[in-house]
Amino acid sequence: MKKITLLALLFIGSSGIYAQKSDEQVLKEIYKSALTNSKCYSWLDHLSNDIGSRLSGSASAEKAVQYTKAEMESIGFDRVFLQEVMVPKWVRGEKETAYILDNKTKINVPICALGGSVATSKNGLTAEVIEVQSLEELVTLGKDKIKGKIVFFNRPMDNAQIESFHAYSGAVDQRYAGAKEASKFGAVGTIVRSMNLRLDDFPHTGAQSYGDLPKSQYIPTAAISTNGAELLSKTLKNNPKVKFYFKQSCEQFDDVLSYNVVGEIKGSEHPENIMVVGGHLDSWDLADGSHDDGAGVVQSMEVVNIFNNLGYKPKNTIRVVLFMNEENGLRGGNKYEELSLVNKENHIFALESDSGGFSPRGFSLECDDAQFDKISSYAKVFEPYLIHSFVKGHSGSDIGPLTSKKIVKAGLKPDSQRYFDYHHAANDKFDAVDKRELELGAATMASLMYLIDKNGIETK
Amino acid sequence: MKKITLLALLFIGSSGIYAQKSDEQVLKEIYKSALTNSKCYSWLDHLSNDIGSRLSGSASAEKAVQYTKAEMESIGFDRVFLQEVMVPKWVRGEKETAYILDNKTKINVPICALGGSVATSKNGLTAEVIEVQSLEELVTLGKDKIKGKIVFFNRPMDNAQIESFHAYSGAVDQRYAGAKEASKFGAVGTIVRSMNLRLDDFPHTGAQSYGDLPKSQYIPTAAISTNGAELLSKTLKNNPKVKFYFKQSCEQFDDVLSYNVVGEIKGSEHPENIMVVGGHLDSWDLADGSHDDGAGVVQSMEVVNIFNNLGYKPKNTIRVVLFMNEENGLRGGNKYEELSLVNKENHIFALESDSGGFSPRGFSLECDDAQFDKISSYAKVFEPYLIHSFVKGHSGSDIGPLTSKKIVKAGLKPDSQRYFDYHHAANDKFDAVDKRELELGAATMASLMYLIDKNGIETK
Repeated sequence: MKKITLLALLFIGSSGIYAQKSDEQVLKEIYKSALTNSKCYSWLDHLSNDIGSRLSGSASAEKAVQYTKAEMESIGFDRVFLQEVMVPKWVRGEKETAYILDNKTKINVPICALGGSVATSKNGLTAEVIEVQSLEELVTLGKDKIKGKIVFFNRPMDNAQIESFHAYSGAVDQRYAGAKEASKFGAVGTIVRSMNLRLDDFPHTGAQSYGDLPKSQYIPTAAISTNGAELLSKTLKNNPKVKFYFKQSCEQFDDVLSYNVVGEIKGSEHPENIMVVGGHLDSWDLADGSHDDGAGVVQSMEVVNIFNNLGYKPKNTIRVVLFMNEENGLRGGNKYEELSLVNKENHIFALESDSGGFSPRGFSLECDDAQFDKISSYAKVFEPYLIHSFVKGHSGSDIGPLTSKKIVKAGLKPDSQRYFDYHHAANDKFDAVDKRELELGAATMASLMYLIDKNGIETK
Repeated sequence: MKKITLLALLFIGSSGIYAQKSDEQVLKEIYKSALTNSKCYSWLDHLSNDIGSRLSGSASAEKAVQYTKAEMESIGFDRVFLQEVMVPKWVRGEKETAYILDNKTKINVPICALGGSVATSKNGLTAEVIEVQSLEELVTLGKDKIKGKIVFFNRPMDNAQIESFHAYSGAVDQRYAGAKEASKFGAVGTIVRSMNLRLDDFPHTGAQSYGDLPKSQYIPTAAISTNGAELLSKTLKNNPKVKFYFKQSCEQFDDVLSYNVVGEIKGSEHPENIMVVGGHLDSWDLADGSHDDGAGVVQSMEVVNIFNNLGYKPKNTIRVVLFMNEENGLRGGNKYEELSLVNKENHIFALESDSGGFSPRGFSLECDDAQFDKISSYAKVFEPYLIHSFVKGHSGSDIGPLTSKKIVKAGLKPDSQRYFDYHHAANDKFDAVDKRELELGAATMASLMYLIDKNGIETK
């Protein structure tokens, strides 16, 4: 009897040992490992405080590639490799200046160029301002009222939304397409209220696009802090002839070579099935990008650190993918899928963390109904960790391009209330991330990776 | 037909109108009111930044009584009144100093006297240190090893706990009873590792008790920051003869008169049934006490502001109770119950918010099984607001003394991860509270108050 057990143990390996443990027991071990023996917080410390902001094409983005590659090599993947990807290189240049010109009074306000914007002339740009609440309002106003002016987009994010991402979706068209649309009506520049639910003094940058406008029609565009937007709006109500001045020297360079960083553990039973867990390595340039998306990067790496701590050998191939260029191009995500097609890879699951390092609340899932039922049936085992929210919805931008048949895609859903306090702004720094909240997110990701690895995504 | 409707409307009043609305609709209005039209954040701003710390017996605690009374009077209660209560008055005095004395090297460390501690002598106290992990270890060591020394309690809060309050419960006996127990073995003072899951430089104060020791055996006791505790422990390992010096000049005065602040709205159908919502107005003295418990105070007041905004007239009598002296005596909570008994009042429900102004997650309930089933059946209507957690457990300290027959007692359960970063420390300040998180907590409280007011607590 004893002999048989011993022999059996020799053959069943670690996934066999794990087959004998209840899910409850494994999740307990996962959360304990994350809360008492994790590396993610110190990885984030280095990424944020020693490397800093990581805009695509910057020297620090390349440092981050080398650092995360080396760290992943040190924790025992089967292989760690880079995927070459050409990325846009946009540089902010000198710090922007701006003021409201009310008759002869200059009132300085905090702005920052939006990503991809052109510069103003060297002396800056001064013009009258027209405030609008939406892209549609441009059509109503027409060329006569817009031509030669700076369009000021001032529709606030809707504070009545419970989830802040819904408020963001409802307002971000002004930032992304404001300049393109206003230019069509002869505007000379645009100023956009920051995507921020709070009233404060931080301007929030972010991607904008001129779409298919001819280059001659590109106009400079910047975000203004929410307090600045309130002030500008109030000043305009008293004096519609108020002018606005801003100066920015940002510049778009040729694309440069960068990398996705990929760490891989071969599956012990189904090496052909790939499960991705990732975040994006690039950040905006105004701060460390500790929440967006340093947190997602180190949490994804932590998933494998937890598996190692537990001695768990996955049945499927696990890939930690640190995508480059989510913020202003999505080149890394697209490149990953392009190579996946070339290599005829079969992805069964992808999990992204790109909503900040806050207390985890659940998952947002892209899958069919039967798969959703299967995955949300795990809610019970997540309950002791206060993970309750399993919903259908957007998973993650970087894993968006993945198209493998039947793939399930998931996004970690942390508490969203504070996310837009920091998003793309100068305060998205290390000290805004709580160690335990970050670790609980990593544990939550590792737990879902474990359950999917064990049970697959097939449904009857 | 039209006439009948009109006539009916004239008679049914606002609770009648509300009877026609679905719970889903009413909760939507409550959350919208809290997120777009609330007063709680500006109340907290005043309480924290203009009034400041509010230790029982202090001038600022009295200012807080007057301020909240005036604010409640301004938002339309039927009556606002004060309940006299004698409270302890303990004063910290000069800022404490402390250092580790390793041979002749002095290493300064941050400490603060625990509430209720006696002072050291004017020149401070220097003694050898003995580190222990528990009260029980004192017994094992015995008088021989403890006499004449400073006992250093260094058992950390357990980071493996998912809810930080469980980690607190598992460690706080060292703070509360450490000095009393160590004194019995001849210790001359105690130093307690701060109740904090993080490693940082903030000492955290809190209540301690000498129990029934004779006054001659009271020994000075202080908390040391977690970083300080780590350093002291490490230094002791290298050199067990290390000494510790600390000096504090705190003093206990005679009890002084203070007040609970009570705002009341008479019930339109069952005025004899009272529903309490409250928090505690006092705080520790090291900071504003914005989380503990400024948040609970302003959220409780906001419940009535929301009802007013919605034009909702409760069926039962609603009382907002701002209790005095939760931190070091619970005199306010006890006085409230004492008067309730004298006046033969019937409390059917009490809700306390005293776990910080973080994102709300649910409720912790003290009630019988049938009542628990009834209340947790509301979970469905709370789901859109990400309120999922209905558990049996501790409700709140101030409402603890309430003994009405069949009363249901509830505590708001916010996300607990960051609570002990701030609890009783100098960083429990206004900027540590997020406006939306605070407002969502108020809406969650108002929603439960609404549902209980509407449906009662009776079960079949």
